[in-house]
Amino acid sequence: MPRLSGPRIRLSQVTSDDLLRRFHVVIPAGGVGTRLWPLSRADAPKFLHDLTGSGTTLIRSTYERLLPLAQHRVMVVTGQKHSVAVTAQIPELAPDDLVLEPEPKDSAAAIGLAAAILHARDPETIMGSFAADQVIHPVAPFQQAVAEAVATAAAGKIVTIGIRPSHASTAFGYIRQGERLEVAGAPRAHHVIEFVEKPQAAVAAQYLASGDYLWNAGMFVAPVKLLLDHLQAAQPQLYTGLSQIAAAWDTEDRQDVLMKVWPELPKTAIDYAVAEPAAAAGDVAVIPGEFTWDDVGDFAAIARLNPAHAQEGMTVLGERKARVYSEDATGVVVADTNRVVALIGVENIVVVDTEDALLVTTTDHAQNVKKAVEALKEKGDNDVL
Amino acid sequence: MPRLSGPRIRLSQVTSDDLLRRFHVVIPAGGVGTRLWPLSRADAPKFLHDLTGSGTTLIRSTYERLLPLAQHRVMVVTGQKHSVAVTAQIPELAPDDLVLEPEPKDSAAAIGLAAAILHARDPETIMGSFAADQVIHPVAPFQQAVAEAVATAAAGKIVTIGIRPSHASTAFGYIRQGERLEVAGAPRAHHVIEFVEKPQAAVAAQYLASGDYLWNAGMFVAPVKLLLDHLQAAQPQLYTGLSQIAAAWDTEDRQDVLMKVWPELPKTAIDYAVAEPAAAAGDVAVIPGEFTWDDVGDFAAIARLNPAHAQEGMTVLGERKARVYSEDATGVVVADTNRVVALIGVENIVVVDTEDALLVTTTDHAQNVKKAVEALKEKGDNDVL
Repeated sequence: MPRLSGPRIRLSQVTSDDLLRRFHVVIPAGGVGTRLWPLSRADAPKFLHDLTGSGTTLIRSTYERLLPLAQHRVMVVTGQKHSVAVTAQIPELAPDDLVLEPEPKDSAAAIGLAAAILHARDPETIMGSFAADQVIHPVAPFQQAVAEAVATAAAGKIVTIGIRPSHASTAFGYIRQGERLEVAGAPRAHHVIEFVEKPQAAVAAQYLASGDYLWNAGMFVAPVKLLLDHLQAAQPQLYTGLSQIAAAWDTEDRQDVLMKVWPELPKTAIDYAVAEPAAAAGDVAVIPGEFTWDDVGDFAAIARLNPAHAQEGMTVLGERKARVYSEDATGVVVADTNRVVALIGVENIVVVDTEDALLVTTTDHAQNVKKAVEALKEKGDNDVL
Repeated sequence: MPRLSGPRIRLSQVTSDDLLRRFHVVIPAGGVGTRLWPLSRADAPKFLHDLTGSGTTLIRSTYERLLPLAQHRVMVVTGQKHSVAVTAQIPELAPDDLVLEPEPKDSAAAIGLAAAILHARDPETIMGSFAADQVIHPVAPFQQAVAEAVATAAAGKIVTIGIRPSHASTAFGYIRQGERLEVAGAPRAHHVIEFVEKPQAAVAAQYLASGDYLWNAGMFVAPVKLLLDHLQAAQPQLYTGLSQIAAAWDTEDRQDVLMKVWPELPKTAIDYAVAEPAAAAGDVAVIPGEFTWDDVGDFAAIARLNPAHAQEGMTVLGERKARVYSEDATGVVVADTNRVVALIGVENIVVVDTEDALLVTTTDHAQNVKKAVEALKEKGDNDVL
């Protein structure tokens, strides 16, 4: 019998509709994406941009990628100042599922609050956390991996979705996988032995060669109850505060409690607060993702992700492509203004042209953009940051 | 007795005040400077910019450089659309000495009309023609050379001011000098044997080695009568038309005659119409200029001319220097907007940031800017040209 092709999801019989009805997606939308300045900045962070020339923003793409699995069970956690922009991107979002942080408190508080709210509504919920600013292609195997992760989470695991490394990257943390798990509906589920930090090049090469290590993309699916149990054990103060907010969330007291409790919460990453202790306890599994994944960390990534839009080696993004003229030039141009941009005889160039700031660098120096932003901050040029 | 220092001009006894009173400067201000796009363009050509960080435009610098010799006897020939800008730059200019071309007709018509007007006013006039967009340094030896040229012109010559070559350039035409002339007040005056076109590299090297060749900078001083005689012989139609305009210039009929006659005038360069035939007739002399000279042909020239403004290898021009941030970058930035410009890890880069157009190239490709402008014209992006 021929396989069905196209975007339709093929779930195993076990990952039934009943199971998916317990699934609620959480999209943490934080992080300015400093290395993508001046395109990405405090008022217009990375996830609000179309960085792949697809015509949709990264957060909208994230939402649409998960829609067939989660239907409209989607929660977004973001900063208060992005309320209007996020609502414009996802008008389908239920108002009670837009969690606005009064101030940034790192990922354990953001994801933990989502888990606590979902738990207060229904302790059987399985949540999936997927950052708003990642690029995944193709979508079908991603959705298949999420479906397997849901099945594995239902079996009592916190389930990461790891990325099969394409090279010995030193830019990502790794997940060390162990034995295969026997979970119905999740043929690729494996135990996780440990999470490891970004390695040195030689170590990364060993990881790649062994075949036992996957990139940690920060994506996971977990029963909210299990996640909160680990959070309570590792970060009791954070757990208590989040529980207080969650208890008030769907009441009139939401804003009062949020404003009172949130500022006192400790800042820590979900990796330390949940993932690593849970792995040590043997509670973490992984589904190897058979798709390409990119966190669009810098402009070199944008050049890499847009081969289809390259004109004679030049990737042109933005509203005004027709106004870009290039000759003997390679690299990436983001034209966010109405100006004519002419590029002559420049290789691997990165030009980002916005109303109030212009960046000129090369893909080789893309990582140094962060340093420039820090320098501009020191100079007092905060109006463009 | 100690030499006087500073900008004061030391004229020989022969180049007396009486002789200088016959001297009238003509500044042809034409040419867009296409290789300096988008800074220089049809509405704001090269001569209206400060390209050296001096704080004054090129045309104003040209005027001030000649002021001690010509006092206020200065005429400017330019396009009608630059009338307001030129007057703003040289408010001292007498209205009758602002010659506005209804349309470009090349240098023979522009300079020839100036000569014809000056001749109609006083046939004893010695004119000096100095393009509006050249950079000369230092000023004192330039003024000394002009003074010698005036003395030599008074002896009945068309006198070019040649530039001692610093290298075997293939970008300029050359002047081949002959024997020394015996002219009171002009110890460096030499006969000119011929003008030669831009040479190939090997030929340019021979020219440099011989010591007999000077760069042709297009600067000359001549009795208007002698110039017009040669023009009449070589271009009788042009001469007749210019004489008609000149006869009407200081009358009420100026505009009528100009608009009627000008469009019919033949287009040709002063080199072909006057300089070369005059040289063949033995009527041309040259004063070797002992100063540096640059016609600011492209952005590489701007980088070269602004060493004093280089910050860590980066030359920054324009109103908004304080908003430019550079790191590991060399080259030239012209910041003509209020935007922050960040340059990271780019070598010999040229960035020109204007309100409606942005150029990114390198000093090595500076000559190709002209090609880009032609391509933009073909694309229909005329609004920025």
